[in-house]
Order: sequence, then C-alpha cells, then structure tokens
Amino acid sequence: MRKLTLSMAETIIAAAFEKAAELKLKPLTVAVLDAGGHMVSLSRQDGSSIMRPQIASGKAFGALAVGTGTRWLNANGESRPHFVQALNGVSGGTIVPVPGGVLMKDQEGDVVGAVGITGDTSDNDEAAAVAGVAAVGLEADCG
Amino acid sequence: MRKLTLSMAETIIAAAFEKAAELKLKPLTVAVLDAGGHMVSLSRQDGSSIMRPQIASGKAFGALAVGTGTRWLNANGESRPHFVQALNGVSGGTIVPVPGGVLMKDQEGDVVGAVGITGDTSDNDEAAAVAGVAAVGLEADCG
Amino acid sequence: MRKLTLSMAETIIAAAFEKAAELKLKPLTVAVLDAGGHMVSLSRQDGSSIMRPQIASGKAFGALAVGTGTRWLNANGESRPHFVQALNGVSGGTIVPVPGGVLMKDQEGDVVGAVGITGDTSDNDEAAAVAGVAAVGLEADCG
Amino acid sequence: MRKLTLSMAETIIAAAFEKAAELKLKPLTVAVLDAGGHMVSLSRQDGSSIMRPQIASGKAFGALAVGTGTRWLNANGESRPHFVQALNGVSGGTIVPVPGGVLMKDQEGDVVGAVGITGDTSDNDEAAAVAGVAAVGLEADCG
Repeated sequence: MRKLTLSMAETIIAAAFEKAAELKLKPLTVAVLDAGGHMVSLSRQDGSSIMRPQIASGKAFGALAVGTGTRWLNANGESRPHFVQALNGVSGGTIVPVPGGVLMKDQEGDVVGAVGITGDTSDNDEAAAVAGVAAVGLEADCG
Repeated sequence: MRKLTLSMAETIIAAAFEKAAELKLKPLTVAVLDAGGHMVSLSRQDGSSIMRPQIASGKAFGALAVGTGTRWLNANGESRPHFVQALNGVSGGTIVPVPGGVLMKDQEGDVVGAVGITGDTSDNDEAAAVAGVAAVGLEADCG
Repeated sequence: MRKLTLSMAETIIAAAFEKAAELKLKPLTVAVLDAGGHMVSLSRQDGSSIMRPQIASGKAFGALAVGTGTRWLNANGESRPHFVQALNGVSGGTIVPVPGGVLMKDQEGDVVGAVGITGDTSDNDEAAAVAGVAAVGLEADCG
Repeated sequence: MRKLTLSMAETIIAAAFEKAAELKLKPLTVAVLDAGGHMVSLSRQDGSSIMRPQIASGKAFGALAVGTGTRWLNANGESRPHFVQALNGVSGGTIVPVPGGVLMKDQEGDVVGAVGITGDTSDNDEAAAVAGVAAVGLEADCG
C-alpha cells in the first residue's frame, strides 16, 4: 500500500491551485486527508470564506466515509435524503455530500486518502481536485 | 482592510432599529459579528423571543461562512437541501440559512463582518440589516 | 417583578464601561442576560479577544444557574471541583465559574437577570459589573 | 492592521520546520489560524500522530481565545483549573492549554493570527512557533 506523505499532499495542493488559476476559479480551500480521515495538509487561499476549511475537509471525509467520491453522496442526497441525513448524524456532522470530495487509490486499488476542495462550483472544485490527484500518480474516484 | 469597531456596530444596530420603526416591524434582535464570526454587539428588543439571539447570530455567521448573504443559502436550501443540512453539521449547528444575514464589505471588497436580524419576515429583517450596513458606509451583500 | 428591558441593559453596559475607563481596565466584553438566561445585549470593546463573548455570557449564565454570583462558583471550584465539573456537563458547557458574573435582583428579591464581564482580572471584571447593576437601581449579588 | 495571507502562513510553517530540523525535534504538526481563529494552513509531518491537527489548532485557538499565548493558559490550568475546564466548555472543546500556541501581533499591537505546534515537548513546540512568527516579521506573544 502506498502511504500518503506530507510531500505528496503539498504536490496535490500546488497542482490543484495551478488548475484553478488556469480555469480562473474563485479562491479555494483544499484539504488533503490520509486513509484514516486525518488531515495531512490544508491551504485556504486569500478571500476564501471562514467555514471553507470545514467544507473542504467534510468533502474529503465524506469520500473516505463511504469509499467513493462525493458525487455519489450528492446523488444519494437527492434520491434518498434520509440516508445522507443519517450519515451527518453518525459521523458527528463531518460530511459534506456534494461533488469536490475525491478518493485517491493506488495501483492495487487500496485507498491512500482523499482530497476535498471548495470555493467555486462543485464541478469546478472537483476538476481542481482531480488535477491534484493526477499530479502524484494516483487514481481519482469522483463517485 | 477596514476593521469592525464597537462604535460601528452600535451605529449599525441603531440604524436597523430606526428602519424597523419606520416600517413598523415586530420586535427584532440584531447581531453584529466581525470578519471572523465573533460577536461585537447584540441587542434584543423587548418582546423579541428567547432564541432570537441564536437566530440573528446564525444568519450573520451563515453569511460569513460561505462568503455571501444568506439569501444564497436560502436558495441552496431549496435547490440542494443536503448541502445546507451538511453545513449545519460542519458548523456545529451555527448557521441559519434564510434571508436576513447580510455580509459587509469595504471598498476593496474585503469582508468586514456581517449583520444578522430576526423577528419579522425574512425580507423585512433583511431590509433592516441593509439600512444598518448603509449607516456605516459599507457595501451590503444579501446573497 | 421587575422585567429586564433593552433600555436597562444598555444603561448597565454604559455604566460598566464608564467604571472600567475610570479604573483604566483592559478592553472588556459585557453580557446582559434576562432571568431566563437569554441574552438581551452584549458589547465587546475593541481589542477584547474572540472568546470573550462566550466567557462573559458564561459568567452571567453561571450566576443564574445557581442563583448567586459566580464568586460562589469560584469557591466551589476550589473546594469541590467535581461539582463545578458536573455543572459544566449538565449545562452543556455554558458556565464560567470565576468572579465577574453578578446576579441582579429587584426590591422583592426576585431575580431580574445577570451581568457577566471579562477582560481584566476577575475582581476588576466584577467591580465593573457591580457598577452596571447599580446604575439601574437593582441589587447586585456577587456570590 | 496587517492581514494574514496564505503566503505568510506558508513561510511560517517552513521556518518552523527548519527550526525543528535544526533542534532535531520529533515530527510536528503546525497550524496557522487567522485573527478570527479560522485555519489558513496546516501541515502534518510524516509520523506525526492522528490527533495532532486538532492539538495544533487547539493551541493556536486557545491563544486567540484569551488574547495571549497558551503559556498563560497553562499557568491558569495549574492555579485555577476550574477556569480552564470552563473554557473547554464554552469553546466547544477547541482549546488546548499548554505552551506552543503563540499569538501573532503587528507593529500596532493588533492581532494578526496565531500559530499552534505540537509533536515534541511543549517548550520545543513553542520554540519552533516563535521561529515561524519571526520569519514574517510579526511579534510573538507566548503568554
């Protein structure tokens, strides 16, 4: 199993910000969590609002919580909202079920961690996260 | 960047109450939070019910949390309720996503704080908040 | 029973700040709660740190919780800390058991509300609170 | 008033890690919070344990909460533990009252943010934090 290092997290964040600049996105916050759901690194760009660290972490945690990207949770939020509400409960309010939480897997399919991004539209947040994951040669699972 | 002072907060509250009197609104509670979401001043008019301080603060905090007035959160509460429910969770239940939470910005576009008002209809609460923000020469962002 | 009005709360806060200026105290935060423990007004002076609203409210709430000023809770914190720890628990973490939370009573001995002040030493915080209570002709119970 | 930027936070973290390497400290986690107590950046070195992000943030938040470095909170934890226990309560369990939370002020004495570090002894954590603050030309207040 490949283990997430701080150096990898820094590369992911830098690549996500580079993609965001290319797409001219609004100020973002990026959280990188390890396979256990614990933060390795977080960066909040100037002008990104105050609850963005929790939202970014909540997207990444949501992906790890159910083993796939938060696009799956977003679909569930529409098809069976009571399930997603219950996840809020059992997780102690730590999950944000909209796109932008991307699971990272290695070549053996093992979970290495997750990236959560917030600040622009959910689709754009996700695009920046995917660019970040690609920069360290891992597989991105968007859900 | 302009910093929110107690003197400014007092002016905001007085102007909001003046507008409320002019519009013959019900008893209001007004909360003024700084850019970090911390209370600078709060006033609850006689007859305003007991949970109004939390509601007023929750509107102001909601605006700061996502970087725009709570009219945006209200729209999201209808279009993707699972997102707003998750915000309740990650914020520890401190966000009230209906109109009446107004973000305050200075001339450079920097966030100075937010005003949250509750007691009458959400639209009227917002009108009083806008009057308060105008009284200190800041830009009101309703969402 | 005399009922706490917003006008009285404003007078209390102004008198407390006047006393603080006279004593050259550090920046204070003053919270005025009604007999039910609900906020009527709060003012945080420029330079008073970000958790001061919760500390001021917690002192006032502590006085109302046990029916006497927080000097009594402070003594209990030393003589039987397990009791004060339990109060933290049953109150949901809303009590601050050090001097500066002053209960306000009317001439019949009925509780009208409480004032909580924080920012300088606990003794000085209490002195400012007592001055505030005196300004509206109520009896101050420091515990 | 000087505003904390992401670029400044990155410089603070890099300087803290450099100091830690020089002192041969154990793996650290560094959190940099803005004046409102919201995370701007966090880095957890490889081998730093899973709750370190919360401890680092809790030290920085504790300094901001009371307006001085956490060495002051540590002293209070010994002289009046019931006060520090109550702070845990009113802050929702977000304060870590041991050295290593350092307040950052600008030349006018305004609070710019705080750095919290954990992983080695509290004294060594604090030394790394002070090095970080010096790297951006701000004043470090250890409490």
